[in-house]
Amino acid sequence: MQSPPLGEFALIAQLAQVFGPAPPGVVQGIGDDCAVLALNPEQYLLWTIDSLIEGIHFDLAYMSLKQLGRKALAVNLSDIAAMGGEPQYALLSIGWPPDRELNGALEVAAGLQEIADQYAVRLIGGDTVRSPAGLMLGLTVLGSIRPEELLCRHGAQVGNLIYVTGPLGEAAAGLEVLRRGIALSPELEATVLGAFLDPQPQLPAGRCLAQNHLATALIDLSDGVASDLFHICTRSRVGARLHALQMPISAALSQVAARLHRDPLDLALKGGEDYQLLFTAPPHQESRLRQCFQAANLPPPLAIGQIIAGDRVYLETQEGLRDISGAGFEHFLAPTNE
Amino acid sequence: MQSPPLGEFALIAQLAQVFGPAPPGVVQGIGDDCAVLALNPEQYLLWTIDSLIEGIHFDLAYMSLKQLGRKALAVNLSDIAAMGGEPQYALLSIGWPPDRELNGALEVAAGLQEIADQYAVRLIGGDTVRSPAGLMLGLTVLGSIRPEELLCRHGAQVGNLIYVTGPLGEAAAGLEVLRRGIALSPELEATVLGAFLDPQPQLPAGRCLAQNHLATALIDLSDGVASDLFHICTRSRVGARLHALQMPISAALSQVAARLHRDPLDLALKGGEDYQLLFTAPPHQESRLRQCFQAANLPPPLAIGQIIAGDRVYLETQEGLRDISGAGFEHFLAPTNE
Repeated sequence: MQSPPLGEFALIAQLAQVFGPAPPGVVQGIGDDCAVLALNPEQYLLWTIDSLIEGIHFDLAYMSLKQLGRKALAVNLSDIAAMGGEPQYALLSIGWPPDRELNGALEVAAGLQEIADQYAVRLIGGDTVRSPAGLMLGLTVLGSIRPEELLCRHGAQVGNLIYVTGPLGEAAAGLEVLRRGIALSPELEATVLGAFLDPQPQLPAGRCLAQNHLATALIDLSDGVASDLFHICTRSRVGARLHALQMPISAALSQVAARLHRDPLDLALKGGEDYQLLFTAPPHQESRLRQCFQAANLPPPLAIGQIIAGDRVYLETQEGLRDISGAGFEHFLAPTNE
Repeated sequence: MQSPPLGEFALIAQLAQVFGPAPPGVVQGIGDDCAVLALNPEQYLLWTIDSLIEGIHFDLAYMSLKQLGRKALAVNLSDIAAMGGEPQYALLSIGWPPDRELNGALEVAAGLQEIADQYAVRLIGGDTVRSPAGLMLGLTVLGSIRPEELLCRHGAQVGNLIYVTGPLGEAAAGLEVLRRGIALSPELEATVLGAFLDPQPQLPAGRCLAQNHLATALIDLSDGVASDLFHICTRSRVGARLHALQMPISAALSQVAARLHRDPLDLALKGGEDYQLLFTAPPHQESRLRQCFQAANLPPPLAIGQIIAGDRVYLETQEGLRDISGAGFEHFLAPTNE
C-alpha cells in the first residue's frame, strides 16, 4: 500500500512542529479555531485568518458578489463564536482577477459591511492585489473574551453530552441543489439555499455558553460534524458516540435529500458549512443549559451523542456501530468541495 | 477619451467610503500600512494583512519555497516597520495547489520561521486550504507601539527633508536579471538578487525613528519611491520635490542597469519591492537624526528631496522638473509586476 497523501490535518500538525510550542503570552497557538493572546490579564485577544478561494470555497455561478461578501465575513466570525468570544474588528485582503470589473469589489464590500453591522464588527482596512486566477478573499478578525470564559476544542470529558445549536446538512444539500440545478418549492429553496448561501455565525449561542460556563469544549461546524467532532476528540483525548436517530435532520432536509437521491443522515454527518456550533457539557448541566438558552431567546440545543473513552468517533445505528472518525471534508484530500 | 480603469488606490478610497469613518478605538483605519487599535492607553496594536499570490507577487521559477517563506514574512514585517512599531505575532493562511507536493508547505514554513526568529516574532497558527491555481500565502501580523511613538503616512510638513534608509532600485534590477536570465559576477548577483529575493524589513530603523521622535511621516517602499512618496503627500496634503542627483543609486545598480540597458534612475524611482523606509523630518533634526542612527548602528539615512506646498511629486533633473506623482507599480493597472 502507498502511504496516504499528507492531508490538511497532518500538515497542520507538522506546521505546529516547525513553529514550535506556544510561547508565553500565547494561550492557544495553532490547532484551534482562533489563536488566543493574553495581551492583558482581564481580556484575551482572539485572532483568526481565513482565505476564501474561488473554485474551492465559492462559485460565483451560484452566488452574487454581495452574498460572497456576507458569507466571507460570516464564516470568519464563526471562528470567534467557536471560542465563545465577541468579534470586534476585521481586516480584508482582496485578490481580484484581471478579467472581472473592479467595481465588483464594492459589491463584495457592501456584503461584508452588512454582516459587520449585524454583528457590531468594525471593518477597518485591508489591501487589494491582482489575482491571476480567480477571486480570493483573505480576512482576519480580532475578537475578545474574558479569560475565565474561553472555550477551546480541548476540555471534553468522558460522560459529557454532545450538542449542536441547529439542524445539520442543509448547507450541503443547498450546494448540491445549486450544482445540479434542481428546482424546489420556494419554501424548501429558502431553507437549503439560505443555509448554504447565507450562514449566520452562532455568536449569541457562543456567548451564552461562555458567559454561563455551560460547555467543556466548543467548535464550529465548517467541515461536517464527523470531522469537526473528531477535532474535539483528538484535542481532548477522548472518543465520541453519536446516535443516528438523534441527528437533527429537518423535514426540509429530508424532502430535499429525497429529491437528490441522497441519504439525509450522510449529508448531516459529512456535509460541511453548517456553521452551527458543536459543544460538550456535563449531563447535570442539562436543565441549566436549556434555561440559559431560553433566557437568551435561542433555540434549544440538540443532544446528538456523548463523549466516551478512547479516540474514535462512532455512529450508533440500528445496524450497530460505525467508525466515522474524521469522515468529513478535508481540504487536501477531497476532490470536490463536498 | 474613455474613463480610466479603477485602480487600486481609487478602489481603496471607495472601499473606505463603504466601510465608513474609523470608529472609536480605531486610531488608523484603511489607508496606512497598518490598522492601529487603541486597545489600552499605554499601547497601540498594529495590525496588517497581506496576500502573496503566485504569478503576481512571486514566481517559483526564481525562488525556492523557503525563500518565498522568508520574503512573505519579511514584507509583512515591513508594514510594522512602516509605523515605527515592533512586530509580535503572525498567523498564516496557505492556499496550496493540488499539483504541488504538500510537503513543500513545510519548506515555506521553515523560511517563515527563520525570519520570525530573526525579528523575534511568534508564528502561532493559521489555516491551510487548497488553491486551484497557484500558491497563495496570506499573512496577518500583530505588533505594538506606544501611542506617542506612532508614525503614519500623514504628518509631513512643508520644508521637511525626505530620507530613505538605503539604496533604491536594486530589487527591481534583480527581478529583471532573473526574468531575462542574465549572468552577472557573483558580487553583483549577490547584491541585486539578494535585494529582490531576500529583503530585510527595516525594523531597527523604524524603531529608531519612533523612539527618538525623529520623523513626521513614514512609509515603507513596496511599490517604488515615486508611488509611495505620493501616498505620503496625499495623506499629508503636501507636495514633494526629489533631486535626481541625490537618488541613492549604488555602483552595483549602475553596473547592472547598464547590462540591462535600463536607466538606473528609472529603476530607483519606479522599481518596487525595495522595502527600505522613506520618511520626512524637519531640517533642524538633521544632526540628531544622524547621531541616533549611528548610535543604533544603522547606516546613515539618505536625503533625497524635500516636502513642498501643493499636491504633486516632482523630480528635479538637469533638464528641469518632471511630474512623477504616483509613477510606480499599481497592482491593478500595470500589466506585469514591474
